[in-house]
Amino acid sequence: MTEASDTPTRAEQRRQQILNAAAECFRRYGFHGASIAKISKEAGMSAGHIYHFFENKEAIIAAIVEQRVEQSIDLVTSFESETDVFGAMVERVDLGFEDCTDPAYTGLWLEVLAESARNPQIAEIVQNADRKMRQRITRLEGMARRSRGLETRLDPEAVTEIIMALFGGLANRAVQNPDLNKTEVLKVLRIAAKAILEA
Amino acid sequence: MTEASDTPTRAEQRRQQILNAAAECFRRYGFHGASIAKISKEAGMSAGHIYHFFENKEAIIAAIVEQRVEQSIDLVTSFESETDVFGAMVERVDLGFEDCTDPAYTGLWLEVLAESARNPQIAEIVQNADRKMRQRITRLEGMARRSRGLETRLDPEAVTEIIMALFGGLANRAVQNPDLNKTEVLKVLRIAAKAILEA
Repeated sequence: MTEASDTPTRAEQRRQQILNAAAECFRRYGFHGASIAKISKEAGMSAGHIYHFFENKEAIIAAIVEQRVEQSIDLVTSFESETDVFGAMVERVDLGFEDCTDPAYTGLWLEVLAESARNPQIAEIVQNADRKMRQRITRLEGMARRSRGLETRLDPEAVTEIIMALFGGLANRAVQNPDLNKTEVLKVLRIAAKAILEA
Repeated sequence: MTEASDTPTRAEQRRQQILNAAAECFRRYGFHGASIAKISKEAGMSAGHIYHFFENKEAIIAAIVEQRVEQSIDLVTSFESETDVFGAMVERVDLGFEDCTDPAYTGLWLEVLAESARNPQIAEIVQNADRKMRQRITRLEGMARRSRGLETRLDPEAVTEIIMALFGGLANRAVQNPDLNKTEVLKVLRIAAKAILEA
């Protein structure tokens, strides 16, 4: 990028257009069913144009996963800037819930995970992104505990695992039980979050 | 079945052979990539034979999901027969963890969930199985609370949602972070389980 502006350049716009089209195709047809031909049709641009931005489908998935993680990291950052980090983490679990059950991502994310269970290249992308996310959440937990003068006798990384299992698991739940009572579920989620941050 | 015996009949054996082959193909190629031709090759029997047992791939998925749920329900039943149901639910979370992160199922289950996010027929199968599982877990929670004379101020079904999110989420975690420290994660899981059962 040659200009430091908030307005996306034409190239950035086209790149995003490809990512949106690819996300839609992965969701609709699965990773293998979503050919570059289909993505190109959905994006309304030539396959050559797509290859100008992305080497292959794996590179597109990598970019989608990166954007997904950036969105979640933005949320973590917003919690970090709270005066009462502990209170924010417990009370505002609804924000994490919304982030994880975002209908624009749920199906797509499950597709990415399913693919990463059989495709080492996708597994590497997912695991690298996960490492980044874990570090940020572990740091956030530390800030939360310090904001209340708490010390933990647990492995902070194991606490991160359970936090991530809870939110990732709630995304699965939205598919398995679309009628779940969000308000009541959030109450239980707060109790679980508080208990593991205080332990 | 004409005989009430524990020995599977020849038909049952062949049906199971198809399910195992199909599970392997779904895991390896995804739902759409796993053609009846591939399943038939993997099972070592003709496509005609497969159609004798199952109308289509959806019917095979339905049978796989049913077996998966039966395995989890067996675990719930074993907890129900404990004297201290509450203690068993908290202390033996490792059994739920093993059940959910069973490598024979993790990738396959993600594939089924990803497919159910785009295929209403698979969604119906998954949601019906989920309803069955939820009811059993809600009942088990009730038994756990009664075994300690506890009453909950929470919606028991919302507690079930969080328990299922935790275990389902841990299956995702095994894909996203294969190096997670199981022993430490189980400690945190016990604290979360105890907190929401006591609340």
